[in-house]
Amino acid sequence: MNECVFCKIIKGEIPAKKIYEDENVLAFLDIDPLTSGHTLVIPKEHYEDIFDMPEELLEKVFSSSKKVAQILKENLKCDGINILNSNGKVAQQDVFHYHVHVIPRYAGSNFKLKSENSSPENVDETFQKIKE
Amino acid sequence: MNECVFCKIIKGEIPAKKIYEDENVLAFLDIDPLTSGHTLVIPKEHYEDIFDMPEELLEKVFSSSKKVAQILKENLKCDGINILNSNGKVAQQDVFHYHVHVIPRYAGSNFKLKSENSSPENVDETFQKIKE
Repeated sequence: MNECVFCKIIKGEIPAKKIYEDENVLAFLDIDPLTSGHTLVIPKEHYEDIFDMPEELLEKVFSSSKKVAQILKENLKCDGINILNSNGKVAQQDVFHYHVHVIPRYAGSNFKLKSENSSPENVDETFQKIKE
Repeated sequence: MNECVFCKIIKGEIPAKKIYEDENVLAFLDIDPLTSGHTLVIPKEHYEDIFDMPEELLEKVFSSSKKVAQILKENLKCDGINILNSNGKVAQQDVFHYHVHVIPRYAGSNFKLKSENSSPENVDETFQKIKE
């Protein structure tokens, strides 16, 4: 894992603006934020994605994400929060060390999360595929 | 909570295509999916958002979201997964019963999640605000 930028942040080899840390989890400001206070929450152990993550650690990352959301709400007075986690290159995952985005949202801002090229889908057919 | 559409789904008053259920959590296909297999994971008890959710139940919702991601990967052969949770109207929350979107992604699809009107941000200033 020598090449992993998030492992380097955990080891202190790359600086980061840390806003929360415990035994298992580190949270720091995204260097290219979508909104003011955009934070990444990562496990200290290297796992690539949600399929790779042990259940107990996954739970810790998300309960820490709630703590981070509270820190951002109190300190930046944001009015809402998005929690986003991308798994796989096709899902727009950029760094292959599991991470959760905590994205503060502000009343009066015109920032939006949008979906592009969503196509109409037959939910009945999908359901049959899953149930088979 | 008589008016809550998700509470009505839990009570069986509104039908839903259920793909996972346990004591605490229900997962069903979104009726207006962004991609094939788009699923919502909700706690059976009514909570509005992440700030409202007890930590233990929040953890259960997210470990169930991993189970749902695995079900979708195995059955729909998706190549990636987005996990998204929106809190507050300003964060584009639509139904005010806590829910997590599990959105399968497929190689070759031109579906994208995009951010619109992100503005450049001074991360140093934001960090000072949080640390104060």
